[in-house]
Amino acid sequence: MANVTIKILAKELGLSTAAISKALHDSHEISESTKQRVLALAKELNYIPNPYASSLRHRKSNTIAVVLPDVTDSFFSEAINGIESIAIEKDFHVLLYLTHERAQREETILKEFKSGRVDGIIMSISSETTNFDCIHDTFSKNMPIVFFDRICEQIDTAKIITNDFESGYLATRHLIEQGCKKITFLSNSDSLLITKNRKEGALKACLENAIEESFLHVKLDCYANEFDSEKIEQLLTSEQKPDGIVCCIEKFTPNVYIVCRKLGLSIPKDIKVLSFSNLNTAIILNPSLTTITQPAFEMGKAAATILIKSIEKKSFILKDETITLPSTLFIRDSTTN
Amino acid sequence: MANVTIKILAKELGLSTAAISKALHDSHEISESTKQRVLALAKELNYIPNPYASSLRHRKSNTIAVVLPDVTDSFFSEAINGIESIAIEKDFHVLLYLTHERAQREETILKEFKSGRVDGIIMSISSETTNFDCIHDTFSKNMPIVFFDRICEQIDTAKIITNDFESGYLATRHLIEQGCKKITFLSNSDSLLITKNRKEGALKACLENAIEESFLHVKLDCYANEFDSEKIEQLLTSEQKPDGIVCCIEKFTPNVYIVCRKLGLSIPKDIKVLSFSNLNTAIILNPSLTTITQPAFEMGKAAATILIKSIEKKSFILKDETITLPSTLFIRDSTTN
Repeated sequence: MANVTIKILAKELGLSTAAISKALHDSHEISESTKQRVLALAKELNYIPNPYASSLRHRKSNTIAVVLPDVTDSFFSEAINGIESIAIEKDFHVLLYLTHERAQREETILKEFKSGRVDGIIMSISSETTNFDCIHDTFSKNMPIVFFDRICEQIDTAKIITNDFESGYLATRHLIEQGCKKITFLSNSDSLLITKNRKEGALKACLENAIEESFLHVKLDCYANEFDSEKIEQLLTSEQKPDGIVCCIEKFTPNVYIVCRKLGLSIPKDIKVLSFSNLNTAIILNPSLTTITQPAFEMGKAAATILIKSIEKKSFILKDETITLPSTLFIRDSTTN
Repeated sequence: MANVTIKILAKELGLSTAAISKALHDSHEISESTKQRVLALAKELNYIPNPYASSLRHRKSNTIAVVLPDVTDSFFSEAINGIESIAIEKDFHVLLYLTHERAQREETILKEFKSGRVDGIIMSISSETTNFDCIHDTFSKNMPIVFFDRICEQIDTAKIITNDFESGYLATRHLIEQGCKKITFLSNSDSLLITKNRKEGALKACLENAIEESFLHVKLDCYANEFDSEKIEQLLTSEQKPDGIVCCIEKFTPNVYIVCRKLGLSIPKDIKVLSFSNLNTAIILNPSLTTITQPAFEMGKAAATILIKSIEKKSFILKDETITLPSTLFIRDSTTN
């Protein structure tokens, strides 16, 4: 954009660019009368400081990066709303980066941040990420990182999570209370901590009821839809056919419903279905979907609050703390006869 | 971040910062042997150019802004995926700004761009925006803007739309073919061009079938959910009660379904419902939802392609052109007996 620059102001007033800059920053080296002249002209010409020049001076870009797997998932889009609500209040800009669940893409994105484009990062790791060297490398170079939901345990920083173990336990106990004896846990990862915790919680409920031998963990790739459907159909026509399913992410739900319909299986009569989900259509599905709903907006808000506070303090010291915001079980028709 | 800077390289080698900078840019003013020394040290210390310093030199930030109303709407989140697919290919960064349908917020966001933080803007205007002065002002200062979906007709630039008039017509004709005689069009705006076009299309279908007198346009505020429900309930218990509803945005659908259930109205027997929507749960709703589905991903992709091409050419000349990508009518149970 052809903006009014310090150079133009200097030329107009017959002063050096350094003098203009000092006057604009109210330096004691510049006389009051000169300051008045500079400010008057700056106002008249509608001078706006260049943010990149300003970033160079202050080593602060007022920009944070949000790195997450998928913007079409209702949990993540709500979390973005939470992050943005704080960013706008604190006058920060939000760069959005999507990993699409690919570890390689995540690494490429992180490397970009070494150049100082952003003041900090809010991150939820991909379902593929098992090597944390690149995250560690970025963090160790004094780049503040706050994790939410899919955290990286190995990095000593702030982490915003929900009560995944307890949620997995409550979800599964609910299915058992509704008569289920063969529970399958559908996830998109073997390695994510949230998946492990939810699964451990589910297993605890199965152990308490002595049905742990029929417990199954099936991993789907949520980006290969047809393949997912096939895998679900194989499961539901096998000897291991469950009578209760816990979907670890909401993207699996349409396929589970569609395959059940195709096979003539009634939800909830033949099979009960529960999903971790923030979908606002859960209540009008056929049948309405029992969900574990995460506090997505609040988790995004908490992550942004902590990150921006650390940036504004210029200390870049993020406490190694874990903040847990609880999820809620909403019981609907997909699990109750 | 405590990065290796040109200053550090200069100090190490006993050269001026200007000489280092010239050497790094392969200037003919610097001897080959000095260049070799500079490059070797830069490599050794892992020097990465500061993007903001680079932006100042090149007047290019490799950053685009995406300004839209709502990231939790499936149309917009899919469009972001389309934009991002091009940005990552072209090595551009995406700043995300949400207006939450507020004209005032949109204006504040646009004013921010005068400072040169971004090279261009992709925008879908808020449902409240009726004054285009601020958009015009930003555009007239050589900031490239490409509109998608909710465009601003008055600005002579590239616009990516779908066939809204035709879609409104096809949607309504379908309802009429299914026996509807009293059609209500639910929207969140009186002013948006897409709303006007869809409504005009709907009216045309009503006129062709001589049922235009019972055609109603009801405006809801999609952010006041309880208020929306009340308004829908008032409509469905009034003398003007429709037998067919076209939802102009998907956010209205849950409320319509819930109010119908509350009032004991069967969809589709008593009332037929169709929505403009990209929801992947449309097929598993109770009943499955007939939709007009927009090519969201492709629209985002087209907008980003045109914008980045114009930025890379450095000409900043965007043709005043309108690209129309067609939507698709998916007929499901909510409109068929």
